[in-house]
Amino acid sequence: MRDLEKLFRARTVAIIGASDKNPWGAIATQTLADIGYTGTVHLVNRRGTPALGRETIKSCADAEGGIDAAFVAVPAAHMLDALEDMAAGGVKYGAVVTSGFAEVGVEGAELQRALFARADELGITLLGPNSLGFTNFIGRTALGAMPMPTPPLSDPRVALVSQSGATTVLIAQAAHQFNVPLTHMVAMGNEAMVDLSDVIRFFVADEATRAIGIFAESIRDPAAFIAAAGEAFRANKPIVMLKVGVGELTATVAQAHTGALVGDDKVFQAMCDAYNVIRVNSMEDLVVTADMLAVTGPIDPAKGFALASISGGACEIVADRGEEAGIPFTQFDAATLDKLAGVLSDFGAAHNPLDITGAAMARPTLYSDVLRILGESGQFAFIGVVGGEIPTSREAENPVARAASVEIAKGLRAPGVKGALFQQTLKQISPYGREFVAEFGFPLVTGGLDHAVRAVGKLWQWSRGLARSLPPQQASRLSTMRLTGEHETLAWLANQGVPVIPQKIVNSRAAAEQVFAEFEGSAVLKILSPDIAHKTEVGGVLLDLASAEAVGTGFDTIMDRVRASKPAARIEGVLVSPMRHGGQELIVGIARDPEWGLVLAIGMGGVWVELLEDSQLLLLPVTEAQVIEALGRLKAARLLTGYRGSRPANLGRIAEAVTAICNAAIALGDDLVALEINPLRVDGEQVEALDALVIWKDG
Amino acid sequence: MRDLEKLFRARTVAIIGASDKNPWGAIATQTLADIGYTGTVHLVNRRGTPALGRETIKSCADAEGGIDAAFVAVPAAHMLDALEDMAAGGVKYGAVVTSGFAEVGVEGAELQRALFARADELGITLLGPNSLGFTNFIGRTALGAMPMPTPPLSDPRVALVSQSGATTVLIAQAAHQFNVPLTHMVAMGNEAMVDLSDVIRFFVADEATRAIGIFAESIRDPAAFIAAAGEAFRANKPIVMLKVGVGELTATVAQAHTGALVGDDKVFQAMCDAYNVIRVNSMEDLVVTADMLAVTGPIDPAKGFALASISGGACEIVADRGEEAGIPFTQFDAATLDKLAGVLSDFGAAHNPLDITGAAMARPTLYSDVLRILGESGQFAFIGVVGGEIPTSREAENPVARAASVEIAKGLRAPGVKGALFQQTLKQISPYGREFVAEFGFPLVTGGLDHAVRAVGKLWQWSRGLARSLPPQQASRLSTMRLTGEHETLAWLANQGVPVIPQKIVNSRAAAEQVFAEFEGSAVLKILSPDIAHKTEVGGVLLDLASAEAVGTGFDTIMDRVRASKPAARIEGVLVSPMRHGGQELIVGIARDPEWGLVLAIGMGGVWVELLEDSQLLLLPVTEAQVIEALGRLKAARLLTGYRGSRPANLGRIAEAVTAICNAAIALGDDLVALEINPLRVDGEQVEALDALVIWKDG
Repeated sequence: MRDLEKLFRARTVAIIGASDKNPWGAIATQTLADIGYTGTVHLVNRRGTPALGRETIKSCADAEGGIDAAFVAVPAAHMLDALEDMAAGGVKYGAVVTSGFAEVGVEGAELQRALFARADELGITLLGPNSLGFTNFIGRTALGAMPMPTPPLSDPRVALVSQSGATTVLIAQAAHQFNVPLTHMVAMGNEAMVDLSDVIRFFVADEATRAIGIFAESIRDPAAFIAAAGEAFRANKPIVMLKVGVGELTATVAQAHTGALVGDDKVFQAMCDAYNVIRVNSMEDLVVTADMLAVTGPIDPAKGFALASISGGACEIVADRGEEAGIPFTQFDAATLDKLAGVLSDFGAAHNPLDITGAAMARPTLYSDVLRILGESGQFAFIGVVGGEIPTSREAENPVARAASVEIAKGLRAPGVKGALFQQTLKQISPYGREFVAEFGFPLVTGGLDHAVRAVGKLWQWSRGLARSLPPQQASRLSTMRLTGEHETLAWLANQGVPVIPQKIVNSRAAAEQVFAEFEGSAVLKILSPDIAHKTEVGGVLLDLASAEAVGTGFDTIMDRVRASKPAARIEGVLVSPMRHGGQELIVGIARDPEWGLVLAIGMGGVWVELLEDSQLLLLPVTEAQVIEALGRLKAARLLTGYRGSRPANLGRIAEAVTAICNAAIALGDDLVALEINPLRVDGEQVEALDALVIWKDG
Repeated sequence: MRDLEKLFRARTVAIIGASDKNPWGAIATQTLADIGYTGTVHLVNRRGTPALGRETIKSCADAEGGIDAAFVAVPAAHMLDALEDMAAGGVKYGAVVTSGFAEVGVEGAELQRALFARADELGITLLGPNSLGFTNFIGRTALGAMPMPTPPLSDPRVALVSQSGATTVLIAQAAHQFNVPLTHMVAMGNEAMVDLSDVIRFFVADEATRAIGIFAESIRDPAAFIAAAGEAFRANKPIVMLKVGVGELTATVAQAHTGALVGDDKVFQAMCDAYNVIRVNSMEDLVVTADMLAVTGPIDPAKGFALASISGGACEIVADRGEEAGIPFTQFDAATLDKLAGVLSDFGAAHNPLDITGAAMARPTLYSDVLRILGESGQFAFIGVVGGEIPTSREAENPVARAASVEIAKGLRAPGVKGALFQQTLKQISPYGREFVAEFGFPLVTGGLDHAVRAVGKLWQWSRGLARSLPPQQASRLSTMRLTGEHETLAWLANQGVPVIPQKIVNSRAAAEQVFAEFEGSAVLKILSPDIAHKTEVGGVLLDLASAEAVGTGFDTIMDRVRASKPAARIEGVLVSPMRHGGQELIVGIARDPEWGLVLAIGMGGVWVELLEDSQLLLLPVTEAQVIEALGRLKAARLLTGYRGSRPANLGRIAEAVTAICNAAIALGDDLVALEINPLRVDGEQVEALDALVIWKDG
């Protein structure tokens, strides 16, 4: 874990490689001026040639009073010299804009490795290379080449981190336009040393930062990311992420672009679910969502969302999009309806979303009255208001809108109210608009409607996630045994508390008949041999034998067939199990993802998994509650709860079994590649593993 | 069909109800001034009191030279007087802002009906009531109370129509911000007379309008809408629609809001599919999509989409979102790759989306070179470029961005190129930005990335749709027969060319055995009686009878059982059919939607339709090609093409059968409520209706 305090809050900085020919140095110097940096800036030019109209020093060692951190803007060929010079000057931190490393290919990657190994030896911590650096809007420090949206906005609260340099600037510009104040922006570059997780941890600790917005291309160190996400979770700081590389096509693009592998998105989503990382799909949503979460903080997700709007059209859009986003539009209780009727005289039945109609133009106190009533109700965790857009200029303003703004802002600050003004379309808030927002004391202005609604959906998702506990981290564990074959695996699983179908090994016709007598119903016979993987192909399986005689004859038949087709096979006996009929079949698969470790995939067998890809993924370990939730998210969920008169399955028992299977998989240690129970049969109260397959590393 | 020429292009107008106390009149007058209206404006005040600093006339009849159209802004109680006065003055057209009619309840609706009936008698055509009127940006005419975004933009091309008054203004503002020039904006109001379809037809005929953007709450006259959509289709004019009232919740909201019924959205979508009406989900998308379609026009949907971007991050976002939007990212052919390698020297393999990297900053001609090559390739119907955002002011501009803009705009005008500059986030284009766009000659600037990508997806959808032919309109047709029961219905369907399982009626054991001998395999027996609806309950069905003897005994058994349990039932015989095994079961249902007429729903039986709601809807009549396409969109599609070794179904035969069923449903006439074939059994080449149910109006 790296301490980035001295980097991101440097009070004395150097621009290494400053010269009149180097645009990076010029932009970095200009950025420091723009942000109002009050510390000392040294320009370092190894020839000592004046640059940017100022004197330079030849070496970091020449800086009086030392240097906290440097912006390294030298050509790749001079990078080693720059590092040695930093060490000579005692400079422990830097941001490296220099490119030509891992991003250009194998040779560049090798050069990068060597240089950063040297930096490590020298005790120097570096952001980059190929990084546009960072800006700290609170501490008014910047070591970067990112043009800065001005003026800085008040009440900074969202930290922005991006793995794509140019994109950092664009998202920061969008944030500025939508009046979302950033605490910092950081362009990660190649992450040769400081990585995404280090920066996340810094922001978790940073007091001003209330939400962390991330544009991510790939997570280079999954374990570190999980640890950092866990810290953010415990600190109630939302991580909102736009992760590219989701589709098939992007995988190709990203390989060309960053050389980083793009993992399977479903597994990545399972990790995000487990660590309450909130994902969005556009740069606009990244900004809007991070800001809503930052300003609002966690809400009680058991309560509802309400909209009060002057426009019926807006009510309908919010209702349509809100349903898609899974927002709970709790309906008004009787007391609230009563109070609303008192202020909305002409109204029929009041619905949520609430259309307060154009009457609010003539009577703007309707806004504050309605908001006060909704606040008093205690029913609503977040309230959106639609009622006039923020004006862009004094000329564009009118007295009606002004009066409405007074009452809306007042209502949004009423007891029991948390909420925002929703602008109907996504629009720039002008300098005049910013003053307007501040003057009236709007806690939050957001929009357009569909962006706001998606953000509200994420507010609920995040708050619900906070109520869950984090999974303990998957620890490394030696594989001490290598189970093989269905029988051994099922027997071991049974020992681990997994419900497993009874199976007995018999070595004679009489024993088979004897075992059959212990079961109800019919029996299944299967040959048991370490040399026979595909039992059916050699005639080694017989189903649904309904009498002792049939079982006895079956035993002989199987032995004859197997001896005939595989005379050399070692035969350990014949497995006798009861034959099951009816019920539902689940597939419970556990696989080791190279990045995120053991992952559970659960779904119904047959077309559900094969055609509909109807599976849910969870990172291990899992809790029973998580499994029950995941089963509920299956499209096939209704098959388990009693479809067409079938017996409802006991979900608690399924969850117990699946949790036991997961724990067993963990116990099998690091060499386990996959463990699949197919099927886990479910019939009302009965839950049983009927077959199991285990795959080992190098196996 | 109403001629709205004189309304929307009025050269002499009146504001009826103008007074210093009437804000509507003031806004309407101001709007006329803002838009630069050059015709005559009469203020009508029935007392002749001066208003808004001008003289007034007491009656429309006092206007010299007559009046083309009037803005009616009198209280509801004076509305009748206003109509009579309009008639007296020969004013044939008007827009009515007056409210207090259908939107407030039953009494208001009655008043509205009476007043508009009178207007009709007087030969007056009215927009509204409760309408904010319209603005014609081309003809510089306005009869409305909608503040106008200024200045009007050049090259107007998108007409905006909205059923929600305030929303009209907001969408128009958004359009202005995003530099989307409107030809007109129209607020429909209550549509007592002029309805949405009338206005659509006007815009289909309007030369400047190249796309029609609609915010819709409900379609009051479906048949008229279909006719208008058909005209737009034939004129290659896209209709882009944001339709609210999609979710369950909105249905409630909309009932409170407009009193209009909100139809089932799946049926509405089927209508949109049939008439190539393009739907979007937000006001931003409405504007961005309508403009892209207006500027680009139809493209060849067999060709691909390409993106050339300076930012790898943007490539990845466009790839991810583009995959969701169904955009064809055709990969570069060998010749194109070759040419690209010539200009992108440092490149490995070029992929689409194409990351031309920051190299373009130093060498802006890369943009025009790449675009020229893509244009020459003939592979691409539309090309997006990401490479520098439009500056908001001269100060925000820089020489690098300027040089890039020259080359991008040049490239976008190269031979074979149709395309747009994509801004990375959705942002306002400032007055300076507008000049910049015009100066460099960008054909289209759009964004942000996800809005642009969705619009591109719609461009392909619309262009593909244009290649289909419109369904003939459903004509009214008398129901001349009332089929009842499975046998009669199946027999009639067989006559109409529908493949139907063989069925024979027998009245003796011997006859039953005789019929059995004609089949292969086993037989099914069913009692045939007009008095027995539920055959199974009386033991009137026997399955899988495999011998003549079993069939004979079965005949007797059924007759005995039925006589015992329903002694009074009229028995017409026993139906003998072959028993079918295996194959797939489709449900083919046709139902009459009260708004959109006969609709086909098709899906696979069992969980597919019941749990997964996996059905496709098509408006009747259908073509075989449409049915095959719809089958392909089913989640269960793979079950038909040979899943797990089953025989692939002959989709052409299914389509023939379904088309025949649909035509039969149409032939059954207006009293048909529903016709359901469940199942239509499919097994390889064999397609057969096994059972049929028909429901009649008042039946």
